[in-house]
Amino acid sequence: MQLHKRDVVEAATSLLDDYGIADLSMRRVARELAVSPGALYWHFASKQQLLGAVADRILEAITAPAAGPGHWRDRFVGICGRLREALLSHTDGAELVAASFAAGQSQTMADVLTQLSTAATDAGMTSGHAELAARTVIYYTLGFTANEQSRMQWDAAGADVAHTVWTDNPTARFDFGLGLLVDGIAAHNRADA
Amino acid sequence: MQLHKRDVVEAATSLLDDYGIADLSMRRVARELAVSPGALYWHFASKQQLLGAVADRILEAITAPAAGPGHWRDRFVGICGRLREALLSHTDGAELVAASFAAGQSQTMADVLTQLSTAATDAGMTSGHAELAARTVIYYTLGFTANEQSRMQWDAAGADVAHTVWTDNPTARFDFGLGLLVDGIAAHNRADA
Repeated sequence: MQLHKRDVVEAATSLLDDYGIADLSMRRVARELAVSPGALYWHFASKQQLLGAVADRILEAITAPAAGPGHWRDRFVGICGRLREALLSHTDGAELVAASFAAGQSQTMADVLTQLSTAATDAGMTSGHAELAARTVIYYTLGFTANEQSRMQWDAAGADVAHTVWTDNPTARFDFGLGLLVDGIAAHNRADA
Repeated sequence: MQLHKRDVVEAATSLLDDYGIADLSMRRVARELAVSPGALYWHFASKQQLLGAVADRILEAITAPAAGPGHWRDRFVGICGRLREALLSHTDGAELVAASFAAGQSQTMADVLTQLSTAATDAGMTSGHAELAARTVIYYTLGFTANEQSRMQWDAAGADVAHTVWTDNPTARFDFGLGLLVDGIAAHNRADA
């Protein structure tokens, strides 16, 4: 039976959801598919490439472009909100996507970076500053969501995690921080003008 | 021979530096110290607690308070800059400290949160908003540094990582994003006034 690339990604995503990123290895995925590890390397040259494909699978839900261009502020909030939701919908999603983004292996994260850079340019930034601003917003989103997801997973596992400010509305908290960044981008541009 | 808590933390930190966070287990630390795993549990009730102690060990360099209170902007930049440097000085430092912060197991990160919250209060924020602003700055710092460190470690390992904007001055890039956040905090307070 022919092994399709898509089957490998689906098997890896299922393993991620069931066991977490620490147990996601080429060997384990091969065993799940009842093929030899060598068969996977025909589709993916490295584990990093496979993780990048899993990252893009996790981010599928966010790739649909918005109906219109919209105001740059709304685009920042919309894109980052969808990114956070997608990360939360899979076990260790934030950690896996952050690693794939750092390795330059996720096409969707490259697209997100481009969309946010365009929004920052539309806000009035030069293209060099716009990419830095877009990256800043991405690091915040990944850092916030990794923290939120760690806490959720430990709570679910019954671990003794100290309860703090997290007990209420995380979405409002996420949006507050994002709002500070968007205000900072607007202030930066006023200073330039 | 009596096993001191400090010896356990030192052995765990050495293992982290040599092999990374994935290989840091209670069993492995016990083997390194030539004691039974049970002997470690006398000092640390869980692996999470041990990781929290290692996080505090990594962050030792940043705990010295600044000479004077200073302007709130300078305190944000100083604290976050020292935090980033400390994280970069140990293998997987950003990932380990982020996990310990999420689990509420690092006393030093709790102190950093308090110091940044105080700075945000001094900037004119209410205490509730000040803690959210402080957390936002921490998530950015952890997200940025985890990304930077992943890339550095892969580059060192000779992995085929796509080269992007990262090839030049990461400190200037880190400071640019932090500047956006600080500007956002200042803008937020003007809006409140």
